[in-house]
Amino acid sequence: MDNYIDKFDFTRIFDSSAKPLIHYITNYVTSNDVANMTLAFGGSPIMAEAIEEIDEITSVSGCLVINIGTVTTNKLESIKRALKIANQNRIPVILDPVGVAATSYRKEIVFDILKDHQIDVIKGNASEIKALMGLETNSKGVDSEELDLEDISDIGVQVSRKYNTTVAITGKIDTICNGKYIAKIIGGSSMLTSITGTGCMISPLIAVSLARTGDAFASSVYGILVMNEAASSVEKSLKPEESVGTFKVKLFDNVYNIKNKNLINGKKVIINEISE
Amino acid sequence: MDNYIDKFDFTRIFDSSAKPLIHYITNYVTSNDVANMTLAFGGSPIMAEAIEEIDEITSVSGCLVINIGTVTTNKLESIKRALKIANQNRIPVILDPVGVAATSYRKEIVFDILKDHQIDVIKGNASEIKALMGLETNSKGVDSEELDLEDISDIGVQVSRKYNTTVAITGKIDTICNGKYIAKIIGGSSMLTSITGTGCMISPLIAVSLARTGDAFASSVYGILVMNEAASSVEKSLKPEESVGTFKVKLFDNVYNIKNKNLINGKKVIINEISE
Amino acid sequence: MDNYIDKFDFTRIFDSSAKPLIHYITNYVTSNDVANMTLAFGGSPIMAEAIEEIDEITSVSGCLVINIGTVTTNKLESIKRALKIANQNRIPVILDPVGVAATSYRKEIVFDILKDHQIDVIKGNASEIKALMGLETNSKGVDSEELDLEDISDIGVQVSRKYNTTVAITGKIDTICNGKYIAKIIGGSSMLTSITGTGCMISPLIAVSLARTGDAFASSVYGILVMNEAASSVEKSLKPEESVGTFKVKLFDNVYNIKNKNLINGKKVIINEISE
Repeated sequence: MDNYIDKFDFTRIFDSSAKPLIHYITNYVTSNDVANMTLAFGGSPIMAEAIEEIDEITSVSGCLVINIGTVTTNKLESIKRALKIANQNRIPVILDPVGVAATSYRKEIVFDILKDHQIDVIKGNASEIKALMGLETNSKGVDSEELDLEDISDIGVQVSRKYNTTVAITGKIDTICNGKYIAKIIGGSSMLTSITGTGCMISPLIAVSLARTGDAFASSVYGILVMNEAASSVEKSLKPEESVGTFKVKLFDNVYNIKNKNLINGKKVIINEISE
Repeated sequence: MDNYIDKFDFTRIFDSSAKPLIHYITNYVTSNDVANMTLAFGGSPIMAEAIEEIDEITSVSGCLVINIGTVTTNKLESIKRALKIANQNRIPVILDPVGVAATSYRKEIVFDILKDHQIDVIKGNASEIKALMGLETNSKGVDSEELDLEDISDIGVQVSRKYNTTVAITGKIDTICNGKYIAKIIGGSSMLTSITGTGCMISPLIAVSLARTGDAFASSVYGILVMNEAASSVEKSLKPEESVGTFKVKLFDNVYNIKNKNLINGKKVIINEISE
Repeated sequence: MDNYIDKFDFTRIFDSSAKPLIHYITNYVTSNDVANMTLAFGGSPIMAEAIEEIDEITSVSGCLVINIGTVTTNKLESIKRALKIANQNRIPVILDPVGVAATSYRKEIVFDILKDHQIDVIKGNASEIKALMGLETNSKGVDSEELDLEDISDIGVQVSRKYNTTVAITGKIDTICNGKYIAKIIGGSSMLTSITGTGCMISPLIAVSLARTGDAFASSVYGILVMNEAASSVEKSLKPEESVGTFKVKLFDNVYNIKNKNLINGKKVIINEISE
């Protein structure tokens, strides 16, 4: 099977000296980690959700990231305003539908968002993305059920085509799909599911890349690859007495240290054209 | 004096492979630490407070944890809804009345909660628990005054009987009381009061245990014991230049590493029957 | 050029055994770090923003800190109430106008605050302080533009006199001005701009000092000096593979370890009288 990885130009992502402003409307549980991951990867984060200031902030940002963890109806107004401004100004948008499989309220919010606005990247775990097709899931809370790889690919293709977007599905093997190409990423660390917010922390990696390049597919692939490489490298470096606490600290160290390196690796990233 | 510790079966707490979903309505200051402590101890946290999704989340959770730090009147509606659902579905509830001794607003909220809902565990410091008896305290903010051990025991017995609940009082010596038995736990680390949220972080340890066993008293004893053992062990391992920052990181490492070990120790945990 | 540093008595700041209660109405992104920095430096933090409990909390605090990151109109009511209580009770107030240069909404809020209330210390970066003079800035988001040192001094003098306050401007060289004296602080670490919240984390250092001494100028100088010394010392101690994650953890270690030491140093802190 051929690997289309060479058809994509990733160099602008890690070769840039730009420090893009990333506007987040996100949950309060992981906002500090998201801000720090943005800085570690070379971006400048701003968390702002007062409706009165959305226009001024979104319009000067390089990317808008919407995360629906701890969302409330109040916040939804600001989210929709920010999406409108982003779409009008052709500012790329990432949507992280945290826990959308868990409640009808979150489903309603996400469908409401997807109905009226163009999203460049939808990033989630398998259960979250599956829920976007209106399918039942076995997920409880914010964790994902396990699906087999072919099912995940099918869901990715469907969702990417339905919403004309790039879908990034995190899991043991990560799947990125834009309706024409599908990427599989091998690697990472099982410890990523033992600390909170590692899903949320992938968004900044994609967002900074996307603000620099405008390429949703390549940025999604690269953002997830960075997290995988960092996590895997940190896991290997841990001493016997070290675990989740130290793992999280070193994750920031590692992302900061590799932020300008070319990590593209044809053994870990396999990109194919989707057969019709 | 006899130790009734052998009358209790703790094995289901640490021997379990269950990963219970814990629903938190909690303060934003320590929510990240609370989520990470839940994961470190083998649970799955979800923070959700939009009234629209309370029913669906609480009803599938293994335990509900209510923490009133940074509470607002809006949030109170969600708290009361979650408590109603939890009580209806016999899902255990932990209440952390953070800073209740500090303001009449927090007292009002906590008394309102206790009037209408059944709580399985009330966890707080001596001032917070004392305030639940309507007694004056010398506490300012969220810190506790120092009381002598006999006074703490008296308050624990009174509160546990008044609200038909288990009371877990943290302090130099921790006191757990369910109206019939009273436990004293020796150990811990003075550094626990030098970082924020260590009180909040005990709730996940109790919550995961409680979701697995349904035993409020044994879970409270064990949750506090885990925090004490982790803190004491981490404190001893610190290098001279390390202090509060490293202490906090290693606390997560340590809890993760001991999460499946049997820490029960008759020298550190003394359980007695309460004489009438 | 003379150094007026010897005219100031800093000893009460670091010689104290007082553990002042600091009341924060602050953003949720960095609140955990702010709480931990308060504890590390010997204070007791309380984050509280429900309007119903402002009076009771502000009135027993040693210092009130207002930070407008993630502010909303709801929260503004509580901020104004807290400021009123603080002013009535002569409790010192620190204002951190995070991102005020970025949006007219934040400008409106800050001007509204400054119109009706007396502030003891306004702490911000050059763009934020410049915006308080109604001047245009080139800032985007929460980062600062670079200004030359003389311009910063001019702005500091103007703002301190206009609002009868102490102005603390963080930057490569930090500038503190109270209308009569101006201090320059040399040192720090460029890594402070690579993690989020280091600006917010200076407020607790000033707040604890101010609660102990009542001296806004000396406390601002000392608070910034502590952050600089800690950051510089931590940066030097990092191993090659360590960066932003470890840096942040050790920052808390270091502040805790130096909290009672006399760091005053006439080579790093230069204080002059302002010539008319």
